[in-house]
Amino acid sequence: MEEKDEREALDYDTLQERQDDELTALLDARDAKGLKARLLEMNEFDVAEFLSELDAGRMLRVFRLLPKETAAEVFANLEPPEQKRIIESISDAELGGIVEELYVDDAVDMMEELPANVVKRVMRTATPQTRALINQFLNYPENSAGSIMTAEFVDLKKYMSVKESIARIRRIGEDKETIYVCFVISADRKLEGIVTVKDLLLHNDDTVIEELMDRNVVFATTTEDQESVSEKFSDYDLMAMPVVDTEGRLVGIVTVDDVIDVMEQEATEDIQLMAGINPSDTPYSRSQPLEIWKSRIPWLMFLMLSATFTSMILTRFEERLAAVAGLVPFIPMLMGTGGNSGAQSATAVIRSLSLGDIEPRDALRVIWKEWRVALLCGLSLAAVNFVKMLLLDGLILGNSHVTVAVAATVSLSIVFIVMFAKLVGSLLPIGAEKVGLDPAVMANPLISTLTDAVSLLIYIGIATLILHI
Amino acid sequence: MEEKDEREALDYDTLQERQDDELTALLDARDAKGLKARLLEMNEFDVAEFLSELDAGRMLRVFRLLPKETAAEVFANLEPPEQKRIIESISDAELGGIVEELYVDDAVDMMEELPANVVKRVMRTATPQTRALINQFLNYPENSAGSIMTAEFVDLKKYMSVKESIARIRRIGEDKETIYVCFVISADRKLEGIVTVKDLLLHNDDTVIEELMDRNVVFATTTEDQESVSEKFSDYDLMAMPVVDTEGRLVGIVTVDDVIDVMEQEATEDIQLMAGINPSDTPYSRSQPLEIWKSRIPWLMFLMLSATFTSMILTRFEERLAAVAGLVPFIPMLMGTGGNSGAQSATAVIRSLSLGDIEPRDALRVIWKEWRVALLCGLSLAAVNFVKMLLLDGLILGNSHVTVAVAATVSLSIVFIVMFAKLVGSLLPIGAEKVGLDPAVMANPLISTLTDAVSLLIYIGIATLILHI
Repeated sequence: MEEKDEREALDYDTLQERQDDELTALLDARDAKGLKARLLEMNEFDVAEFLSELDAGRMLRVFRLLPKETAAEVFANLEPPEQKRIIESISDAELGGIVEELYVDDAVDMMEELPANVVKRVMRTATPQTRALINQFLNYPENSAGSIMTAEFVDLKKYMSVKESIARIRRIGEDKETIYVCFVISADRKLEGIVTVKDLLLHNDDTVIEELMDRNVVFATTTEDQESVSEKFSDYDLMAMPVVDTEGRLVGIVTVDDVIDVMEQEATEDIQLMAGINPSDTPYSRSQPLEIWKSRIPWLMFLMLSATFTSMILTRFEERLAAVAGLVPFIPMLMGTGGNSGAQSATAVIRSLSLGDIEPRDALRVIWKEWRVALLCGLSLAAVNFVKMLLLDGLILGNSHVTVAVAATVSLSIVFIVMFAKLVGSLLPIGAEKVGLDPAVMANPLISTLTDAVSLLIYIGIATLILHI
Repeated sequence: MEEKDEREALDYDTLQERQDDELTALLDARDAKGLKARLLEMNEFDVAEFLSELDAGRMLRVFRLLPKETAAEVFANLEPPEQKRIIESISDAELGGIVEELYVDDAVDMMEELPANVVKRVMRTATPQTRALINQFLNYPENSAGSIMTAEFVDLKKYMSVKESIARIRRIGEDKETIYVCFVISADRKLEGIVTVKDLLLHNDDTVIEELMDRNVVFATTTEDQESVSEKFSDYDLMAMPVVDTEGRLVGIVTVDDVIDVMEQEATEDIQLMAGINPSDTPYSRSQPLEIWKSRIPWLMFLMLSATFTSMILTRFEERLAAVAGLVPFIPMLMGTGGNSGAQSATAVIRSLSLGDIEPRDALRVIWKEWRVALLCGLSLAAVNFVKMLLLDGLILGNSHVTVAVAATVSLSIVFIVMFAKLVGSLLPIGAEKVGLDPAVMANPLISTLTDAVSLLIYIGIATLILHI
């Protein structure tokens, strides 16, 4: 019991490190029996983490210690490079065993990441039934409900009693991805309702499923976007959601653990796109410089070339701007303020769109809101800038070019630039959503480049009015 | 059955709209009985959505149709403004009933959002026991495991049999946030293991909990950050996680539905910070322009003022740069490219840090990777720019100022600017994490402002070397 008390005083991460040290010691001592016993007590994710830190030879040695079922679960938790390494080192029989034990969604995930020759070998070792299922699932569009669902669920019939249902769960539940939500289907596999194990436990043995099932089921269709699926999970606090085909037949379920992965993936994609990075499934730590370059260079190149417009404007007006000394040095500040203002609006709108907080039909409401925010931001920035230019740039730093007229020109430009940037920043993402593009594309870099050019034009226009350049 | 077939052919959103129309019709017809029957069939989230679209009087009328337990669940799904409106219109007895039915975590969430006078009234109507629990939970640090956990869980003892355990779940399970994961505790409430209902169902009635419980529990401590909790849920595919105090005593559990909210909230915060918006819990659609202004103006102001450095540099060197015609117009493109390059690196690093993909101790590996990516990006951008300047700006647009020397100056500057921006962009977030700041603060706007000034200095330096300005 002493060990127990000690354990409880620690946090989970410290315990993990200690466990890793123990495992390494057992491995070094070549104590296969002790190592196996220790591994079987562990969570599959931790075993996978431990494996991925070993060299190829040791990894395989440890992996082979695991019984088939655990091996499959650990395997599903490994990253594609380690999966590939293991597949290449084990026999067809071993591989076949693992593939049969995997949940279909994990198998499909794996297939999507592995090189074609490895996929072929995996498919060859699978039973015809599994192969057909994997093929069917691989055919659903990427990022659809069909592509993240699994086929291992508990189905019940509405004429079954609670007792019969529990008996069925006990009989077939072992290999199901969840047993806590059961799906009631008709003879032709149409979804009729759901029943939770909680419902079953809290009712009498003789109650018929039809009486207690919930007919008002939140469901998805196979081709529905995974982002819409994860929104429903978040709204309705679901554990599992049925996926039906166009005829309303139950073909699979999505479980909450897969939705968590989807949410992380979708947020990462949005964040990447918003910074001008083409989304990639490979984590940063595992990406090679060339892959990273490939995901970053398209936007950098496009934005650099787009800046040609700004250069052209500046080339055309450089002399006129330079005619009034003191104007040119404020160009970067104006462009920066425009870019930042636009980025704020774009980001707020993109995130709200992706959380389902606003929809394209709210466009007018958004414009009206952003217009008022922009006016508030523009006026406060302009006021502070006016005082700052006269006091700091003019008096303290002694820049004699900063006259009241120059300060007024710059400050007034700020108001119009912020108004323009915020309107464009909020409208472009909504427009993108409306025409079916990912709104995240319309984010910071693109809007900055656009506002750069327009900011310059606004500045030149106002300087012409006030200073008659 | 016809209705059924029709239903199945539709997607869930269409069904929702149809349902809303039906409800409105019943409400207009003042058919309280029909309305109540319809509402009770619906998901609580949908009822809450329907309520929030009604005016205050109708909202209250519909809300009062709901039985106490459903009312509490619907109430938990409402946004703070609607909760406040209902609290202000119902009697103390009604309010007390709802508060007792709420899960503690939902009650705590509500308290954190409501104005002080409303909170006082809620606390007054609660039983002393509930009040003590709410107070205890309110004292955990914001965004800690303690602040998101709930106290409604099933606890078992290790000497109980499967049969006794199931009987206990049937007896106390009704009001628990989850019954599928049960927590085995000692006499002094220390956590000893967990048992799932699946384990219980798949074992014989006589099996003792001690034999089947999992002692290797993934747990959190009360003060642990919620981001670390959600990482564990994602890694280990959990449904519920126990939260223990410093003595290892079980004080609450976190369930997966709360973690989904945490993940959304954390991603939104990161995204907001990365765009220079101070995070806010209020959704965009419900924020007033003044609130939005308050969350956006600090960064805009700070960045505008920081641009003073860039202005100063430009004021100092304006004449020297203008001496070689054709240099000034490329300043915005250089600054933009620097800002975009830096933002890409910062974003990649910030997201990887927050997903646990990299850690501060990986700094050297990150620098080495970014250095190579920067070299690849810088060289490819410079090459394309060199050709583009000579061909497009020089030949096609007929800008006679664009000589080979000018094109070389701009292109060489790109290489150094991209290298600088990517290093700074990747290092600042890691540095922030190391000193305990939120790395997301070191994102696009701040890095753009910093790279603006440095890009200019690099450009001036290289122009001095090549063109002897």
